[in-house]
Amino acid sequence: MTAAPVVPRSTDHTALRPLGLGEVRLTDGWWARWQRDNRDATTPHALAWLERDGSVENLRRAGDGATGGKHRGFWFSDSDVYKTLEAIAWELGRAPSEGLSRSVAELTAVMGRAQQGDGYINSYVQGGHEKRWEDLTNGHELYCIGHLIQAGVADQRVTGGGELFEVAKRAADVVVRDFADHRRPDTDGHPEIEMALVELYRVTGDRAYLGLAQQLVDVRGHGVLEPHHFGSAYFQDATPVREETTVVGHAVRALYLLCGVVDVYLETGERALLDSAVRQWESLHATKMYLNGAVGSRFEGEAFGDEYELPPDLVYGETCATIGNVMLSWRLLLATGESRYADSIERSLFNLFAASTSVDRCGFFYNNPAQRRVKRPAAPTDGERPTRADAPGTRPPWFACACCPPNVMRTVASLGAYLATATGDGVQVHQYVPATVDAGPATLEVRTRYPLDATVELRVATVDSPEWTLALRVPRWCAGATVTVNGEAAEPLFRKGYLELRRSWRAGDTVVLTLPMPPRLTVAHPAADALRGTVAIERGPVVYCLESTDQEECVDLNHVELLVSRPLEEHLRTDLPGGETVTITATGLARDDSAWSAQGWATLGDEPSAEGREVTLTAVPYHLWANRGPSVMRVFVPARKL
Amino acid sequence: MTAAPVVPRSTDHTALRPLGLGEVRLTDGWWARWQRDNRDATTPHALAWLERDGSVENLRRAGDGATGGKHRGFWFSDSDVYKTLEAIAWELGRAPSEGLSRSVAELTAVMGRAQQGDGYINSYVQGGHEKRWEDLTNGHELYCIGHLIQAGVADQRVTGGGELFEVAKRAADVVVRDFADHRRPDTDGHPEIEMALVELYRVTGDRAYLGLAQQLVDVRGHGVLEPHHFGSAYFQDATPVREETTVVGHAVRALYLLCGVVDVYLETGERALLDSAVRQWESLHATKMYLNGAVGSRFEGEAFGDEYELPPDLVYGETCATIGNVMLSWRLLLATGESRYADSIERSLFNLFAASTSVDRCGFFYNNPAQRRVKRPAAPTDGERPTRADAPGTRPPWFACACCPPNVMRTVASLGAYLATATGDGVQVHQYVPATVDAGPATLEVRTRYPLDATVELRVATVDSPEWTLALRVPRWCAGATVTVNGEAAEPLFRKGYLELRRSWRAGDTVVLTLPMPPRLTVAHPAADALRGTVAIERGPVVYCLESTDQEECVDLNHVELLVSRPLEEHLRTDLPGGETVTITATGLARDDSAWSAQGWATLGDEPSAEGREVTLTAVPYHLWANRGPSVMRVFVPARKL
Repeated sequence: MTAAPVVPRSTDHTALRPLGLGEVRLTDGWWARWQRDNRDATTPHALAWLERDGSVENLRRAGDGATGGKHRGFWFSDSDVYKTLEAIAWELGRAPSEGLSRSVAELTAVMGRAQQGDGYINSYVQGGHEKRWEDLTNGHELYCIGHLIQAGVADQRVTGGGELFEVAKRAADVVVRDFADHRRPDTDGHPEIEMALVELYRVTGDRAYLGLAQQLVDVRGHGVLEPHHFGSAYFQDATPVREETTVVGHAVRALYLLCGVVDVYLETGERALLDSAVRQWESLHATKMYLNGAVGSRFEGEAFGDEYELPPDLVYGETCATIGNVMLSWRLLLATGESRYADSIERSLFNLFAASTSVDRCGFFYNNPAQRRVKRPAAPTDGERPTRADAPGTRPPWFACACCPPNVMRTVASLGAYLATATGDGVQVHQYVPATVDAGPATLEVRTRYPLDATVELRVATVDSPEWTLALRVPRWCAGATVTVNGEAAEPLFRKGYLELRRSWRAGDTVVLTLPMPPRLTVAHPAADALRGTVAIERGPVVYCLESTDQEECVDLNHVELLVSRPLEEHLRTDLPGGETVTITATGLARDDSAWSAQGWATLGDEPSAEGREVTLTAVPYHLWANRGPSVMRVFVPARKL
Repeated sequence: MTAAPVVPRSTDHTALRPLGLGEVRLTDGWWARWQRDNRDATTPHALAWLERDGSVENLRRAGDGATGGKHRGFWFSDSDVYKTLEAIAWELGRAPSEGLSRSVAELTAVMGRAQQGDGYINSYVQGGHEKRWEDLTNGHELYCIGHLIQAGVADQRVTGGGELFEVAKRAADVVVRDFADHRRPDTDGHPEIEMALVELYRVTGDRAYLGLAQQLVDVRGHGVLEPHHFGSAYFQDATPVREETTVVGHAVRALYLLCGVVDVYLETGERALLDSAVRQWESLHATKMYLNGAVGSRFEGEAFGDEYELPPDLVYGETCATIGNVMLSWRLLLATGESRYADSIERSLFNLFAASTSVDRCGFFYNNPAQRRVKRPAAPTDGERPTRADAPGTRPPWFACACCPPNVMRTVASLGAYLATATGDGVQVHQYVPATVDAGPATLEVRTRYPLDATVELRVATVDSPEWTLALRVPRWCAGATVTVNGEAAEPLFRKGYLELRRSWRAGDTVVLTLPMPPRLTVAHPAADALRGTVAIERGPVVYCLESTDQEECVDLNHVELLVSRPLEEHLRTDLPGGETVTITATGLARDDSAWSAQGWATLGDEPSAEGREVTLTAVPYHLWANRGPSVMRVFVPARKL
């Protein structure tokens, strides 16, 4: 059993085979440290908050048969418990832990007592606040059960299936009983159940789950839900999925739905589903995604905007939406083997995803701006739970709607599964993270300080099959990648974005991949109005930002320009939070806008002077921002050609 | 009795004396036609909708003593009835009407029956949905009563005070009874009652009303309200008004509060209040106001953004907020006599305010974008009531929250009061609209096609006092204003933004003011990130936009630039909705972005070519947009120096 989040049952429609957490183990470096902290710091933090915010108590009360009392938190708080359980299941897949197993057992016992005789479980409905399946549009009942199923599937893949899996399966069965064979015409307002049901089919082989997933994909888009305040497109119910051309509406819902769509494709091979998902992914990446991996421009409706609507300041950029893109891109990578999907995962992980969590891994951003004009107050560290509006200047410990933190946790815990894949005669390395990869034909040891520096060493530790192909992704940002085998230049094939080395491998063979990553300035598509006339600093996969914390005193980041013809310089620093970091300095202009005075507008040609003094601007990785107290920050800097 | 919305009782703290609707009468042209339509089309439309949407029915049920039934619409729907009544009162101030008087009497009878013995009135509370004064934070009880008082004051000023005034006064008295002398420590979440109480003081002379207004201004900002989801700054309860440096939070609330603050100043002369209002007004106008008069950048919280946060696409720009700025600027103009306040009123009226309403005057925008990238569906013309999210491509007839339409109505009905003022020895003309002005020292006839063309003729019809000063505002956008008297060049004094002509006037004297208004290109402050690299077309007070409706077929307004060194040309057109219109043509570039393909980003220096073909771009006044069906629209156009 492969212990990974997506394990297609059919092999007819996949280009690549996923590897599980037992096969890919992070050994060292930044991501391995995050995994350690995820287990040692974030997990107990989350378990404590789930008690404190009432999420567990809600389920306990349901188990007691209590009705009429006050449900604490949002009506879909059960899902936070389930996502945390899924994260812990993947942690157990990385290494056993008595404490974590006990937490799973305890929470599962609470859920087991809450679960009704026919398998139904939802603490809000059982608390008497709503009737079962009465408000699919807003009720999130299937969404919650979807997360329960994902937790159960993780448990099954890691342990072979304990009580958590049984609770999940019973819940799935009541959904099948009440919804399958079009016994209900509608579906849940928040997609999630679709991919969960496909996964449950994968571990059970029971086609009823797959069939229901297909049905729920099929009915959506035909106006089967009560139109939302924000319109039917808000939850992707305005256009059938096979006809949709771009991502619309609530970003997390749209991307979760597409995960289910690709999952159904991976099992059924229905090309129209893959085509729609690819089309929407392409539209997203060409016109609606930020450089830092943010998706979903609008606070209102937590939604995708129009094409090229990419405000850096007002962007919503929910952490869960970027995770949704990772989940979707991973499925498309498995389906097609094309590197652009792994590129997108890299962009997401090294930037927005990494920025979502504080370096102590116990603080989280729900929404992720690419520009902050003022120092907002720091997040309270104790009991309060700030919400997204006027989000604080640092990462809060938890949220009233706590969808993001456990979503981060389950992604970090299962990160190994996103690094590499196998085929019958090859191994593909998608992300460059220190790890051991046990992939059928061979075992590899990946050693690298990437992206601190540019080289990745892959050592063949053991070989099971003499001739096979090692495929190494060349990120799209990289020009001039080179590769050596045992110190000699290799001449690999370049296919689908990968350098392919095919040969008879021997234990001890060492491949060194070099991905030159000089700092560079990046501009946006000319139709991206909010970014016109600006540049962003990037180095390798890392997007940088200017944070007020690092600037000379006379620099106000709201009145600064970057002199684009001057050189960018790298500096390896050890004094920043989170360990070794490459910072970049540029030459800027601290613009003196005082001549504008009270004037907001001027006639072209009569503008007040906008000169200033030359300064050194210091850029840090975007993911580090707001780890040293509240700050003014910007990713996109006005460009001046001097 | 001066029939105008703001008539200070004290003359110690005013620079200018307002004139009433009996003294300033619009005679001709665009605004006079709107007044006619306001009376003949909008008013019956609004009265019908108030019946249809349940607002009147709510009050009728309260009169019947019905409780427990369903309240229709928002819990503050009473205010829509009151604002409509205020509008009708001002209409009656312009000219009597049996029909309109009957409507006032009928609605007042409904309110009179609803009103409780002690004067309290609120259909939502009386419907049993909430207890009296129980939720000041969100309940809008004082907000509604404030609008009732304003309607009553209008009635009193126009008719001398009928039953509407009596109902309003009784309602005010219960507020005084329960709140004055700090009998309650708190205030309403939505400011409005403050200015209403000052106005009631003005017509009654009863200082209890003024004292309570002062109290409610004083307590606010001390955290007296339950913190809102969006924070205490949302309703200006985070910082005391005398300490506040800029406009914060919900834009309408902030501006309504400041109206009350200036009103208290106008009666008490407390300088700290005026200083705060001026400080906040200046901050607003330098850093948070759009070229078209939009204020309040954010959908979330309907709020002001940070300084220079001026996205043209995502701007909220509520119609009521711009009306709030007109109301505030008018009070500051009365207080100071400085033309910048009249400039702001002009900017607001000729652009966003005019754009808020369809040319048939029965459709309304709630929020007002300065850029629309896609053609949204047209608003349904019948029963549905679209809300602001994903606002439709044309103006809906009404809203579930119908604050904007009657706010527009009352402003149009009382427009005469905003055109001119008087002093002991002078007349000041602030807005150039065809009208007769009867202002103490003389009667003037103002004739003009402004802003279709640049000249304003002012004929002295009758003279009561031989020597006095005629002051004519020179808008800030205007260079080279000239003035003649009886055909001869005059040499006026220029003071506070006005050309002052002091002489012994005789009946028949004719002044001609010429305000040259060649089309011009305007740029934003360099810190306005969302507008970097763009220009807007203006002519006189009118902001223009490019609307897809007028462009050559090959022009996609999302991929277009304006060649700024080419001439702009004016065209007088008679074929557009709303009558004669000056359009402006410019030379543009229809940019071919196809080389970018699926790419959203490029390394600086390696960008795909962005050439295209030269085209003629046609600009129409912004206020006309979306009157010819849904369109793509933009005010700010990327600039190219070719």
